[in-house]
Amino acid sequence: MTILGIDPGTATIGYGLVKKTGTKKLSRLFCLAQGLITTSPNLIFPRRLEKISHELRKILRQYQPDLVAIESLFFFRNLKTFIPVSRASGVIILEVSRLRIPLVEFTPMQVKSRVANYGRAEKKDVQKSIQRILGLKKLPEPDDVADALGVALCAALSPLDR
Amino acid sequence: MTILGIDPGTATIGYGLVKKTGTKKLSRLFCLAQGLITTSPNLIFPRRLEKISHELRKILRQYQPDLVAIESLFFFRNLKTFIPVSRASGVIILEVSRLRIPLVEFTPMQVKSRVANYGRAEKKDVQKSIQRILGLKKLPEPDDVADALGVALCAALSPLDR
Repeated sequence: MTILGIDPGTATIGYGLVKKTGTKKLSRLFCLAQGLITTSPNLIFPRRLEKISHELRKILRQYQPDLVAIESLFFFRNLKTFIPVSRASGVIILEVSRLRIPLVEFTPMQVKSRVANYGRAEKKDVQKSIQRILGLKKLPEPDDVADALGVALCAALSPLDR
Repeated sequence: MTILGIDPGTATIGYGLVKKTGTKKLSRLFCLAQGLITTSPNLIFPRRLEKISHELRKILRQYQPDLVAIESLFFFRNLKTFIPVSRASGVIILEVSRLRIPLVEFTPMQVKSRVANYGRAEKKDVQKSIQRILGLKKLPEPDDVADALGVALCAALSPLDR
């Protein structure tokens, strides 16, 4: 199965496509694709949502993942960024749903816990775990792509009732 | 000009269409249409977003408003409802933007202040003001429709740079 991980945002949305092969007991995980959707700060917010929706649809149609996993914040430090990111998440969830692709959500803590075995792991340690699990030649970057691969891996490594 | 007011939500989204005629100094305001978009609690959240998007597009195409005004929360009591409502707002903003309709946002306090001349006015008093301004036979109801008419009126009564 293939899982598309998405790290929502308004200026930069990371994505990473992970493939899981093998059996339940012995599975292997690969990174098939990764990238960023970016929107210009010169665009008014509604147009940024349009761009996100448009670009995401292209990615979903190109890769046709079996599952989408998004990283969701359920607490925050800054309400001013939390609202636009939540709105962008709404648009992402809408596009995924329109293509009838199942969707799961994980918090950053769940991702860290599943990928690096520790819910409060440092960013760098999570990235090293991602590198190791996926057999990447170097640390995943930028952060938005690393986060997207992280949430895809979290889904791949979780006991999903499916 | 016509203004469509929208009160975002996930289960119930109120809307109200207000027409403004006359001059800057002597304008008149009418209610042309009002209603609710509802989504069933039996639907999973992504499908609810789809329904909201679909129904809203029908309403926007039917009435072709010159402007859309939405009520936005910039503080909240309950994070668990705040996230889905913010996500639904994202979907609403996306659909409005796709049809190239300008959009303005007002907080409940701005609406109260503009419509009832007092930012902390009671709900009932705001509804009475809406009834009076629009010449309605009875108080606007339910609350979601009243809120939608309120934000449409707030936009109609505000000095918009347009």
